[in-house]
Amino acid sequence: MTLAVRAAALDADDPLAVVRDRFLLPDATVYLDGNSLGALCRPARDRVRDTVERAWQQELISSWNSHDWISLPERLGARIAPLIGAAADEVLVADTLSTNLFKLLAVALALNPGRRVILSQSDNFPTDNYIAAGLAQWLGGKRAELRTVTAEALAAADFSEVAVLSLTHVNFRTGAMHDMTALTRRAQSQGALVLWDLAHSVGVCDLALDALGVDMAVGCTYKYLNGGPGAPGFLYLNRRHLAAAENPIAGWMGHRDRFAFAPDYQGATDIRKFLTGTQCIVGMAALEGALTCFDGVAASTLRAKSEALTVLFLDALSAQPHTSTLVCITPLDPARRGSQICLRHPHAYAVAQALIAEGVVVDFRDPDIIRFGFAPMYTRFVDALVAVSALERVLGERRYAAPEFAVRRAVT
Amino acid sequence: MTLAVRAAALDADDPLAVVRDRFLLPDATVYLDGNSLGALCRPARDRVRDTVERAWQQELISSWNSHDWISLPERLGARIAPLIGAAADEVLVADTLSTNLFKLLAVALALNPGRRVILSQSDNFPTDNYIAAGLAQWLGGKRAELRTVTAEALAAADFSEVAVLSLTHVNFRTGAMHDMTALTRRAQSQGALVLWDLAHSVGVCDLALDALGVDMAVGCTYKYLNGGPGAPGFLYLNRRHLAAAENPIAGWMGHRDRFAFAPDYQGATDIRKFLTGTQCIVGMAALEGALTCFDGVAASTLRAKSEALTVLFLDALSAQPHTSTLVCITPLDPARRGSQICLRHPHAYAVAQALIAEGVVVDFRDPDIIRFGFAPMYTRFVDALVAVSALERVLGERRYAAPEFAVRRAVT
Repeated sequence: MTLAVRAAALDADDPLAVVRDRFLLPDATVYLDGNSLGALCRPARDRVRDTVERAWQQELISSWNSHDWISLPERLGARIAPLIGAAADEVLVADTLSTNLFKLLAVALALNPGRRVILSQSDNFPTDNYIAAGLAQWLGGKRAELRTVTAEALAAADFSEVAVLSLTHVNFRTGAMHDMTALTRRAQSQGALVLWDLAHSVGVCDLALDALGVDMAVGCTYKYLNGGPGAPGFLYLNRRHLAAAENPIAGWMGHRDRFAFAPDYQGATDIRKFLTGTQCIVGMAALEGALTCFDGVAASTLRAKSEALTVLFLDALSAQPHTSTLVCITPLDPARRGSQICLRHPHAYAVAQALIAEGVVVDFRDPDIIRFGFAPMYTRFVDALVAVSALERVLGERRYAAPEFAVRRAVT
Repeated sequence: MTLAVRAAALDADDPLAVVRDRFLLPDATVYLDGNSLGALCRPARDRVRDTVERAWQQELISSWNSHDWISLPERLGARIAPLIGAAADEVLVADTLSTNLFKLLAVALALNPGRRVILSQSDNFPTDNYIAAGLAQWLGGKRAELRTVTAEALAAADFSEVAVLSLTHVNFRTGAMHDMTALTRRAQSQGALVLWDLAHSVGVCDLALDALGVDMAVGCTYKYLNGGPGAPGFLYLNRRHLAAAENPIAGWMGHRDRFAFAPDYQGATDIRKFLTGTQCIVGMAALEGALTCFDGVAASTLRAKSEALTVLFLDALSAQPHTSTLVCITPLDPARRGSQICLRHPHAYAVAQALIAEGVVVDFRDPDIIRFGFAPMYTRFVDALVAVSALERVLGERRYAAPEFAVRRAVT
């Protein structure tokens, strides 16, 4: 079976093909950057229009009640819950991933009072370690300290002094995925709490936080959940910690009776205790629309397609003559990677620009990495082949040497 | 001159009348709840449409550069700056008012290391005191403590142990406005820093933070700035504190070189150091559109119209026979109030509901307060008279006694 026949068969059998029809993708583009910014779907567009041009414009303040804006954080949390193997009332959408991480690391230190070490990996996504280091610096060394080790050292690390192990499940730069089960069990068996950052996992991995007994997690919704640029973050707290956990940023939205305007803070008894201020409703409306596309879609289905996409991409890549100058830094075992393939090349930036000029949207990460993200909600198998063909042309014809591709701009 | 003639003359001379034309107000409605949720204007609607349906949909990830989404927090801050008497590079739009307050109170404690008292007023907007109390509890009593006094006691308060005086400029429940100049000078003369919450001030008061030497401020943008439901908050830090101030929630967006993804945190040297995570772009787009309506509009113009509106409203109110059952808890001196009039009535909730049924949208605050907010950008003088007429009808005909107005719903 040729790769083209295999791709066509996979697309024909794809249970998510019908979902793709809801996405408003630009013409003549293969978009492989959903790991940075997910694409717009029709329900997200329509929900924004309706929220702005009907609810806000016509109904104004009464929309807080009539459209139940006030409960969006927990309603959207309940929609994300099944994608990560959580109960509906363990997940909250609010603020940003970074702020949620700050809150939950503070909780973890409080819940594990004999310990002060936050353990992470040295090449974790930077904001995670910045947040932890900033928190530790601000609390003082007697109460908190960030320690980092390499990813390889984690499996044999000593967790006996660790208050909380804080890791990103899928690495943003390599696509490598941690063994969540093994690390969670090992860390917890030595008395550490475990917090997972699911930014590159939710929507493409089959997660089972409750079944595994994970303590806490954070994530973002603008990547594979397609919530829109800068869409809010989410947090998960295992319900066994709910009663004891206190939000360090205790604002009125987390009060158990917000509109009593009582002088003293009494945190909500449910997951809403982690709310702080008023959330951006227009942004949450986009996310609410986007999440409707996941109705009836199992995380296992997303994961299966994600794996099949990256497998096909790598198979196609290895069949091309000019791709041998690339070094794949993503694990070749599908079970050990997320939904992106990261390739090193000496002219990575220019290669990425040349690919974009060909209509294959990828991104670049310092110093020499091209990232190909595969969003199973709207990426077809044929798209993976188109991307490989474009890459072969760019490399074979040395298009990356064209002057217009060499000049670096700011990259997001 | 009758009140009707006076209102017509004021409307005819209103330099902001042209601005009102940009607002998309519902028909047959006098909207006096802009102090809770500002109305939608055409530029906000159009900016959202363009951001979602062109930038996100068509240009996807490249919009971060091509539409300069990445600089929205400081660009929007620069737009708000002239409205509060600040320099463009002292204001940042991000997160929520509550989270910004948490950041700046932490900064204030660090900048005033010999002191640990956060002083506020006992009936401050609750979230402000919740945030302060939560911060103090979390840091521990040796490092921070919230003390509160009544508004009346502030003028003679002892600030000699106070690290930071944290006050809301215009009270949400009464509309009373503090003497910012006197309190700032007195607190600072005794070594305290001063932080003002401008939620009910920005867009209706003529503020001069830099000239007065205020240390810090926070505010929200969904009231008189019309940024939309849950639009982001802002913060102001006087530039004399910029170098020494450190963001306790140190995320990647506050790093001086975000896309280097460096392992160690190096805060930006400008106001962006107070950023944490990725901001909601669709929400910021609405705000950016809304703020274009303030182009060329001086804060003094907004303030003058605000005062004239509340004066006319109270004059009209006092000319009606049935309004004597109301008690005005807003200062009668226009110089001592913000842009709202708060009236007590034994059946306040039902009166508010009856007014809404008449097309005059006001809101209710426990236990017996009706709030009338006057947003100078789109409220006409004739609207103030319509509101008074409706109130007179509701009271004179005891419409508030109708059963459909008596049942309390959740109120935002």
